[in-house]
Amino acid sequence: MDVVLPATLDADSLEHLRRRLAACSDVIVLRGEGEVFCHGLSLRVQDVEFAESFVACVRALRCGPPAIAFVEGSARGAGVGLLAACDRVLATPRADLALTELYFGLTPAAIWPLLSERVRAAPLRWAAMTGQNLGAQEAARLGLVDEVVDGIDAIERCVRALQRTSRDAIAILKRATAPMGAVSLGAERTRVRLRDPEVRGRIARFLDGGTPWA
Amino acid sequence: MDVVLPATLDADSLEHLRRRLAACSDVIVLRGEGEVFCHGLSLRVQDVEFAESFVACVRALRCGPPAIAFVEGSARGAGVGLLAACDRVLATPRADLALTELYFGLTPAAIWPLLSERVRAAPLRWAAMTGQNLGAQEAARLGLVDEVVDGIDAIERCVRALQRTSRDAIAILKRATAPMGAVSLGAERTRVRLRDPEVRGRIARFLDGGTPWA
Amino acid sequence: MDVVLPATLDADSLEHLRRRLAACSDVIVLRGEGEVFCHGLSLRVQDVEFAESFVACVRALRCGPPAIAFVEGSARGAGVGLLAACDRVLATPRADLALTELYFGLTPAAIWPLLSERVRAAPLRWAAMTGQNLGAQEAARLGLVDEVVDGIDAIERCVRALQRTSRDAIAILKRATAPMGAVSLGAERTRVRLRDPEVRGRIARFLDGGTPWA
Repeated sequence: MDVVLPATLDADSLEHLRRRLAACSDVIVLRGEGEVFCHGLSLRVQDVEFAESFVACVRALRCGPPAIAFVEGSARGAGVGLLAACDRVLATPRADLALTELYFGLTPAAIWPLLSERVRAAPLRWAAMTGQNLGAQEAARLGLVDEVVDGIDAIERCVRALQRTSRDAIAILKRATAPMGAVSLGAERTRVRLRDPEVRGRIARFLDGGTPWA
Repeated sequence: MDVVLPATLDADSLEHLRRRLAACSDVIVLRGEGEVFCHGLSLRVQDVEFAESFVACVRALRCGPPAIAFVEGSARGAGVGLLAACDRVLATPRADLALTELYFGLTPAAIWPLLSERVRAAPLRWAAMTGQNLGAQEAARLGLVDEVVDGIDAIERCVRALQRTSRDAIAILKRATAPMGAVSLGAERTRVRLRDPEVRGRIARFLDGGTPWA
Repeated sequence: MDVVLPATLDADSLEHLRRRLAACSDVIVLRGEGEVFCHGLSLRVQDVEFAESFVACVRALRCGPPAIAFVEGSARGAGVGLLAACDRVLATPRADLALTELYFGLTPAAIWPLLSERVRAAPLRWAAMTGQNLGAQEAARLGLVDEVVDGIDAIERCVRALQRTSRDAIAILKRATAPMGAVSLGAERTRVRLRDPEVRGRIARFLDGGTPWA
């Protein structure tokens, strides 16, 4: 079942996403629209109730039915977290990923446990410290992407690969290994950090059309 | 010292294996017979006392003298766990590995901590969710296999590489880093799961000559 | 800011290093002198107060400003731990690394948590069990080295990559993910292990001009 991500995540779009994901009883295929996979948390979000619904979306992906991410465009910040929560990440050569949180004085605390299921701690820290753009191949080398693929045929192949194993056992395995406690704690830390004056300043500069670091 | 694995693991063969491993005071070389490395838990095992002796075998490999796995044939389920418990996994190009637990509604709970010492959590989860066959090269790319080798010369090279380091220190290092608590908990979970009606049904279909998923 | 490592670490050189690191408020570039990056703990160290200052040096690298290791020569034992504590490890093709602790009956207990941020547990254990020499490429394949580079231009590129992200957020991220408790416990274990007669014997043989294992 295709679930199209919102370009940015705010309280409303997260709640909408959460409902869409909750309605999936079979394989979830997570995609973006056009050249954007998902650009993460809306920078207009204040210290509001995004944390709870973001964690609920992660839980739906990480503890629910099988989830496949199909990434054709750009993923930023928490958008990278949503793809990392999936069981299989397919990316076309035009995909690019970046952990952009530190440009804004934030850290990827909420999605760190999900990224850590894919990338070793030291190179992950460096990717976050620099916020560098990762092309599909570089993201695959790190482990954020599982396969660089040419087209949507790859999705069908992944769905078929799941046909013989028990869905109950998949659910048990997913839940038993999901780091949901750490995700919740991380989301809470981000919520608190959003009140920091440096963070507010960097976000304000960006919303005014400048660069966050100027 | 060569230890030949039984093709499948049941209470008797595990107890025999445990004694063989306990008798090793020098480097253990774990091998299969012919085209089978080890096909894991016997599907005729019920919720019996396999768990304790399986954990004892893992402990002998993971906390005892240096252990090298030499894999020429097929490894399935808990057989993959036994090779993963070794300090070095050599595989010939004809080796193939698969985490087949989920075909039967089980999960690789007992061996997960051992697999996790080799493979990152997300691709490991996918390998289990699909039960897909992994050739020697693919298993090496994931980390389940350390080296794809041509022949048994590689074993001698590995044994020589261990000659200058302190055996006491090796034992200390192995014990200090061994996830035995998690292995025990996982074995207990599998023991409970074996009573599940879906699992009994899938196993029964297979023992009747069908496919577990039919 | 360039920090040149002492060839070996004893109470005095560690205290000197600690002060140098504490004085860094901007990016630390950790280097060796000539053909030695750092050969780790001095073998003349007894069960003295090295542990506390070693941990303090690790904390300065792992919890302080961004740290880049530039490795042109040989790194041994705790010297490998110091480079592993850095956020980015650059090595020239002439660099070589080895976890030599087990030659002396010791284990890399104090640096294990740092190595584990870079290398999967099973191949890391093997590298320690054999003490084998790792060239720059092999170390990169394992994850101990992030990039094999031709020259010092790579340092400047890394420093530039850190210019747009918030230094406060970098510090928060580094501290939040630093395994300092495990480093301290490991250092204490090494301190105790240094009193072991086998260890004293292996070190004495080496200091007398022999091999530790003879």
